Amino acid sequence: MLGASGLSITAEIVEKPDGKPLVQHPGGPNPVERLSALLHVDMARVNETIEARMQSPIGTIPDLASHLVGAGGKRLRPMITLATSSLLGYRGDHHILLATAVEFIHSATLLHDDIVDGSDLRRGKPPANRLWGNSASVLVGDFLFARSFSLMVETGHLRVLDILSRASSIIAEGEVHQLAVIGDIDLPIDDYMTIIEAKTAELFAAAARVSAVITKCSEADEKAMDQFGRSLGLAFQLVDDALDYSGQKQELGKRVGDDFREGKVTLPMSLAYHAGSSAEKDWWEQMLDADSRNAAQLTLANSYIERHDAVGKTLSLAKSHAAQAKAALDRFEDNELRTCLRDLCDFVVTRAY
Amino acid sequence: MLGASGLSITAEIVEKPDGKPLVQHPGGPNPVERLSALLHVDMARVNETIEARMQSPIGTIPDLASHLVGAGGKRLRPMITLATSSLLGYRGDHHILLATAVEFIHSATLLHDDIVDGSDLRRGKPPANRLWGNSASVLVGDFLFARSFSLMVETGHLRVLDILSRASSIIAEGEVHQLAVIGDIDLPIDDYMTIIEAKTAELFAAAARVSAVITKCSEADEKAMDQFGRSLGLAFQLVDDALDYSGQKQELGKRVGDDFREGKVTLPMSLAYHAGSSAEKDWWEQMLDADSRNAAQLTLANSYIERHDAVGKTLSLAKSHAAQAKAALDRFEDNELRTCLRDLCDFVVTRAY
Repeated sequence: MLGASGLSITAEIVEKPDGKPLVQHPGGPNPVERLSALLHVDMARVNETIEARMQSPIGTIPDLASHLVGAGGKRLRPMITLATSSLLGYRGDHHILLATAVEFIHSATLLHDDIVDGSDLRRGKPPANRLWGNSASVLVGDFLFARSFSLMVETGHLRVLDILSRASSIIAEGEVHQLAVIGDIDLPIDDYMTIIEAKTAELFAAAARVSAVITKCSEADEKAMDQFGRSLGLAFQLVDDALDYSGQKQELGKRVGDDFREGKVTLPMSLAYHAGSSAEKDWWEQMLDADSRNAAQLTLANSYIERHDAVGKTLSLAKSHAAQAKAALDRFEDNELRTCLRDLCDFVVTRAY
Repeated sequence: MLGASGLSITAEIVEKPDGKPLVQHPGGPNPVERLSALLHVDMARVNETIEARMQSPIGTIPDLASHLVGAGGKRLRPMITLATSSLLGYRGDHHILLATAVEFIHSATLLHDDIVDGSDLRRGKPPANRLWGNSASVLVGDFLFARSFSLMVETGHLRVLDILSRASSIIAEGEVHQLAVIGDIDLPIDDYMTIIEAKTAELFAAAARVSAVITKCSEADEKAMDQFGRSLGLAFQLVDDALDYSGQKQELGKRVGDDFREGKVTLPMSLAYHAGSSAEKDWWEQMLDADSRNAAQLTLANSYIERHDAVGKTLSLAKSHAAQAKAALDRFEDNELRTCLRDLCDFVVTRAY
């Protein structure tokens, strides 16, 4: 019943992503909006479940959680769980619980990331730790993380718990790895890819894979769903890293240049460094050795990045991962939902332009 | 096999608690040491599992985790899981995984607490966040928390995951609650009890209850185990809060007076306030309104606490919870292990003197 209703088309957009306004394509609604429309009944149930399960008699918890979750965001990860469940023909209610669990894990990592990053903007608003302090952000993150496991338990699927607990430890590993190599301009590109796969793609992969688990699909279907999510997540993070050098503040919902300021070595910086003259290399090294970096230095960094087409090359790599994500969907039924998911893969890349 | 070996007596003490040296009773080894001896084979396996499961290719993770876990601590919570499993006649290996999971949850909360408390001593050493920074402490805590769920998944018991995920969200709730009432001298004693039950007793209760689950005991046995752990946890935390006013630095492994300095309203302060003259009440209110409190003020606080026997009353309450914990064990087989667990309940209180 749910799977079927999720497939009905409606013009109404249930959830407008107000955190990161999406570029409107000339041809009509973008794939995120089309997926929101296709899945609007399920998305409404997920939003209700998110709201219900973040409640607690301790008022700070729903207050702080609402600040983050209410700030919008695209709900991309729960949407992936809902869309893939529907595509696989899942019938039941567990996809709602799992989509909520996936969003809670993502929210917990964002609350903890705010402390790590020290950024002053998240989804266009001050991050929760600026308003409630680091302590409350850490603890509410823990609360959401614990609740996500309770939601999974309700589905009765141990494999789901296995997949999402592993994903959670891999995410933490990726974040610690990223922290450990801050300022390391010589970071091998393989290490960069390992980091973004762990910190971002792993949850995308799990969000899609659990749909195959609850639908009792074959091992091959499960792997294809994992591959779809993983490649989409890689494309997504590569574009995110490119946008940090080329995007606009209102598109990103965060300050452009945060990675540079934090000394975080992402692919655009890495490519510009390796392609740079020895004078440029010296400059990058000095930049990253320093305790902080200013706006004038960001402008120069951007000019080097442009000179070596480092954003363009990052987006090309994103495109090839998006193509792999699309290909992973080939084995599944060719319907409107699959078309939307394929378009989503392209959209994740084109949102950069 | 394991349960049986866990019951064999040996003089060797496998793990000396070096973090919080325990008061040696004149009559011989204290109950923690006797339990360590009785359970030494299982405890050695738990220590190996802790060591193995905190590994990661990202070196910061085992380094930081070892700093905390290697600092010792009494391993009281995993010991409860091992002891109750043995008492219930459990045969299998799952108690090892669960004891490790319980210790990982506890370790994760300690790493996150360090950020909340801002204390400069944990188990007699500088806390991990002083050495690796808040970010790494948050993320390694997340890693251990995620790993604890993977360990539970390996047991194949969904009810265990249910119990420990609920316990984890209740712990976080308790910590946020505590944070929200910092400096509130009028905190009702019921609220204080709710906080310590959530932040401490819940995990003790879960550590004992899961033993009944994996041994497939009756609902009544499960409840009795929960009650045992819960009451023991309450006694333990009440004594901890008393020791913060009456203990010695080397006994506590942390600075005496931390609660006072942080403006944390615990039972000794609460009792002294409510029993105090109006001049004393004014003093307490001013103390808690201020941003910080110094050593001279701690001395005066201690004199008021002594005047109203607030530590003594706190310990009396701890004693009554310890008695409830002992009573909860009445329904189980009367053997050496039960005797040790009963003695542990007394010891948790007497360690204060």
